[in-house]
Amino acid sequence: MNYTPVMTVDDINQFIETHFPQINDGGQCYFVESIEPGVTIMRLEPDNRHLRPGNTVSGPTLFALADFAAYVVILAHIGPVALAVTTNLNINFLRKPTLQPLLCKCRIMKLGKRLCVVEADIYPANEDAGGDASVAHATATYSIPPTNMR
Amino acid sequence: MNYTPVMTVDDINQFIETHFPQINDGGQCYFVESIEPGVTIMRLEPDNRHLRPGNTVSGPTLFALADFAAYVVILAHIGPVALAVTTNLNINFLRKPTLQPLLCKCRIMKLGKRLCVVEADIYPANEDAGGDASVAHATATYSIPPTNMR
Amino acid sequence: MNYTPVMTVDDINQFIETHFPQINDGGQCYFVESIEPGVTIMRLEPDNRHLRPGNTVSGPTLFALADFAAYVVILAHIGPVALAVTTNLNINFLRKPTLQPLLCKCRIMKLGKRLCVVEADIYPANEDAGGDASVAHATATYSIPPTNMR
Amino acid sequence: MNYTPVMTVDDINQFIETHFPQINDGGQCYFVESIEPGVTIMRLEPDNRHLRPGNTVSGPTLFALADFAAYVVILAHIGPVALAVTTNLNINFLRKPTLQPLLCKCRIMKLGKRLCVVEADIYPANEDAGGDASVAHATATYSIPPTNMR
Repeated sequence: MNYTPVMTVDDINQFIETHFPQINDGGQCYFVESIEPGVTIMRLEPDNRHLRPGNTVSGPTLFALADFAAYVVILAHIGPVALAVTTNLNINFLRKPTLQPLLCKCRIMKLGKRLCVVEADIYPANEDAGGDASVAHATATYSIPPTNMR
Repeated sequence: MNYTPVMTVDDINQFIETHFPQINDGGQCYFVESIEPGVTIMRLEPDNRHLRPGNTVSGPTLFALADFAAYVVILAHIGPVALAVTTNLNINFLRKPTLQPLLCKCRIMKLGKRLCVVEADIYPANEDAGGDASVAHATATYSIPPTNMR
Repeated sequence: MNYTPVMTVDDINQFIETHFPQINDGGQCYFVESIEPGVTIMRLEPDNRHLRPGNTVSGPTLFALADFAAYVVILAHIGPVALAVTTNLNINFLRKPTLQPLLCKCRIMKLGKRLCVVEADIYPANEDAGGDASVAHATATYSIPPTNMR
Repeated sequence: MNYTPVMTVDDINQFIETHFPQINDGGQCYFVESIEPGVTIMRLEPDNRHLRPGNTVSGPTLFALADFAAYVVILAHIGPVALAVTTNLNINFLRKPTLQPLLCKCRIMKLGKRLCVVEADIYPANEDAGGDASVAHATATYSIPPTNMR
């Protein structure tokens, strides 16, 4: 990958705490695990807020995880200069996840001046990315405002 | 439209109260407005839970509204026999909605024995569907379990 | 709709003939039917090139129709100044179309300075748009190059 | 991967020749390169049929490649018993490909009894999958008819 992160895990966590305090309202549940060139991993520790009948993590929770993790992988690579805005998100729900920690691995597929396209794979924390255990897979497009002076 | 609803607005509201009490946790915010052949309208009264910085309704809130309203239009037409499961949802975010009541108009595009495809249009309650004011538009596919005895 | 077309059906047809001669290679099959504010209708007269086993119009043919018709509705509204580029297209295949003329009704959902989002509904020419007879439905995003001097 | 192919490259090529002769009308351009558990690679050798102005491979060509390659990875794993039908395809166009051989790597994300979800990555034949050179990326859902006696 030719992408180079410009923020560290600590940078990101501090940015989130400052700008998105409400995302962890009711107790922190999102954690940035790692940042590598073109790729980040975020962990969600779901609790009762994220449940659906049948003890499964809800669809909106999986959407929010994919969307937030994709936002973070872009932030990590363009820096906190401009805020990327989701324009399209397509999500496939593959398997019902039980109430357990989930990882979301995001990969930048394209980082242009105006658009960024990201792939997000969600899977149980005790499994591998890209495997048979994925519970959801999304691709998303983000618009990068022109105020971004890259 | 050749689709015929088999549940009324009251039926649906009671079904939701019984089976999805958590959807209105923290105060009721989802309201079924109308059910017609192939089409339903749901209203969301957003509050602080649904906000993002900039006083805008969050993306996950719009996703949840589209997904829940699509679920309801299917439920209204197949009845509470089997629970449809979201398999794919594609959403385009068109305009940033301010904190105001939103409507989600859902239209059945196909109701097969195994799959149902629905279109969802989200717009401010004081505007018209299908117009220039739409804040988000989604299409979604739901799997209908074989236990459904239609 | 607040959108105002800046090209006529004749303008568009001439533009296509000049810039996309190959689209009608082997005999003209695409015809612009109408242009109205925010909406255009294109007709495809399919022949053996567009068939799949079972005498049905192929998926790639339906994709090409949606993509081309969406391109045309944008062209009709921004003029031949810059060429819009497809960045995302999501298509749902609803019913198998037999070998018959098809219409594709495209509606602009958002026309921004940099992005345009379009809805495309494909249905038999002897049926109505938005009805139970739709064979495919797509939403697509187009990037509008910055050279466009609107 | 826990998926096990039940057809070889030769099996697939013979099946295509028998059932989809028209796909290579005007000269063979699609070639199955490899079949591994859960994954296949198909090669497209584009020619003038696949071009757009600017010497780039057209969007419908990329769609057709993703759709056909996804069909093949399913066929390779369920056998020629029933024909999978595309129900949804979402494609992101990432970079304009010049006229050169392209590979499409398809990965099964879920193979259920009724639905199969596949990821398709398209990239120049002299590059690697999943890298910065991808020209398009798609996810698609296929319905597997109940006549399939697996």
